[in-house]
Amino acid sequence: MKKVELVKQIKSKKSLLCVGLDTDINKIPVHLGKDLNAIVTFNKAIIDATKEYAVSYKINTAFYEQYGARGWELMEETLHYIPKECFTIADAKRGDIGNTSAMYAKAFFETMNFDSLTVAPYMGEDSLSPFYSYPDKWIICLGLTSNKGSKDFQVLDTGEEKLYQTVMKTVSKWGTPEDTMFVVGATKAEQMREIRNSFPDHFLLVPGVGAQGGNLDEVCKNACNKDGGLLINSSRGIIYASNKEDYAQRAGEEAKKMQQIMKQYL
Amino acid sequence: MKKVELVKQIKSKKSLLCVGLDTDINKIPVHLGKDLNAIVTFNKAIIDATKEYAVSYKINTAFYEQYGARGWELMEETLHYIPKECFTIADAKRGDIGNTSAMYAKAFFETMNFDSLTVAPYMGEDSLSPFYSYPDKWIICLGLTSNKGSKDFQVLDTGEEKLYQTVMKTVSKWGTPEDTMFVVGATKAEQMREIRNSFPDHFLLVPGVGAQGGNLDEVCKNACNKDGGLLINSSRGIIYASNKEDYAQRAGEEAKKMQQIMKQYL
Repeated sequence: MKKVELVKQIKSKKSLLCVGLDTDINKIPVHLGKDLNAIVTFNKAIIDATKEYAVSYKINTAFYEQYGARGWELMEETLHYIPKECFTIADAKRGDIGNTSAMYAKAFFETMNFDSLTVAPYMGEDSLSPFYSYPDKWIICLGLTSNKGSKDFQVLDTGEEKLYQTVMKTVSKWGTPEDTMFVVGATKAEQMREIRNSFPDHFLLVPGVGAQGGNLDEVCKNACNKDGGLLINSSRGIIYASNKEDYAQRAGEEAKKMQQIMKQYL
Repeated sequence: MKKVELVKQIKSKKSLLCVGLDTDINKIPVHLGKDLNAIVTFNKAIIDATKEYAVSYKINTAFYEQYGARGWELMEETLHYIPKECFTIADAKRGDIGNTSAMYAKAFFETMNFDSLTVAPYMGEDSLSPFYSYPDKWIICLGLTSNKGSKDFQVLDTGEEKLYQTVMKTVSKWGTPEDTMFVVGATKAEQMREIRNSFPDHFLLVPGVGAQGGNLDEVCKNACNKDGGLLINSSRGIIYASNKEDYAQRAGEEAKKMQQIMKQYL
């Protein structure tokens, strides 16, 4: 998907919402049963209920890989159901030497037709470059993450700045704001404004609102730009809003609540 | 697998060899055909021809994921064929927030019964801790990698030392030499001795011999310890030694050649 199409959708839906499909058979409503097909049934109902408010869907690959080959089928079935206008994210945190990253690119951009893939930066330029050879596909590189462990390495001093700043500056030179986004956790409100100042044109994928404690208003206030410039993810807060028969309806309501806040900044 | 069992096998086979099953349908001998089942046929023949000399097999998940769900089946079929005494590695470079890493642990340590998983350190402690809750399973954390991109971030100064040193020191405190290994590229001969001095008891997974230019003798000289302490990987150099009908025999010969060098240090 081209940036212009993503921005157009953000403006028309007045939303920055990304719904995270971290679907776990043990957390979905019991009336859906324990057969793995229930995961797709659940995802489809969530997508139908939220697509009016969501500009993006993020599939967390780990939740599907736990079921092996069958999990990959469930992931593909889910991906195919996501409306064409929505920006799709394979949240897979991949990255390896060049000839291996080329295979990951094939997996997520050809075999499965995701718009984007999250990647880990530790192995450097040749671990990311194979992803850039796909037109209209995006990499979303880890910057400053939402979890507690982000303090272990990401904020180490690397001279004049922190590691996450060095990573983001360096990676931003390998791509452009038309093919590169960064992951910045919603729990890092302080740094969010500084990051927006350093990267005025890049989209940021922002996890950590809701279950992890990030504040939606603060994120929008600190980091919205003229394009919107954010994909704000909510997974558990939306998809598990209810564990009863009204789960899809409740998911839609939670999505709408977030969109109503977001629209004030768009 | 317990460390004592791995060491026992190293001593009895007099080998540190890990065979990397980076199997690509476009690179295997043409007489095997283009049906994806040929990948398993190929892997089985390679395993049979090399198991006398190899103590470990490494499956590079990217090469299988490129085929989607079917690829995961091929990976499982291959894993099941590896002899029980050999140490198995899922080379997947995973790592995410805690509740997601727990799902990756389930994928690779339960659904598939790998002995170990390669992980990326960028997201810190809670991204690795879920893997430690599996007894006799290992994490193999990226330290100093073999590729060109290792110079982009891994050797940044973080005060008194380089980032890879900080990463390895920190991660070594989260686990023990009984459950944690590090990836150190064979192309980093200079740093290999210093790493061994800092981590006398940890196993190192060493890619980069062969196609990537690392020297086997130098690796053994610089980094063998009393247990052997190394799993030295060769992928392309062994599995693609011939693209004719003698491919398995030639793979066995290349594996033996490497083992003959390794045994001098054991």
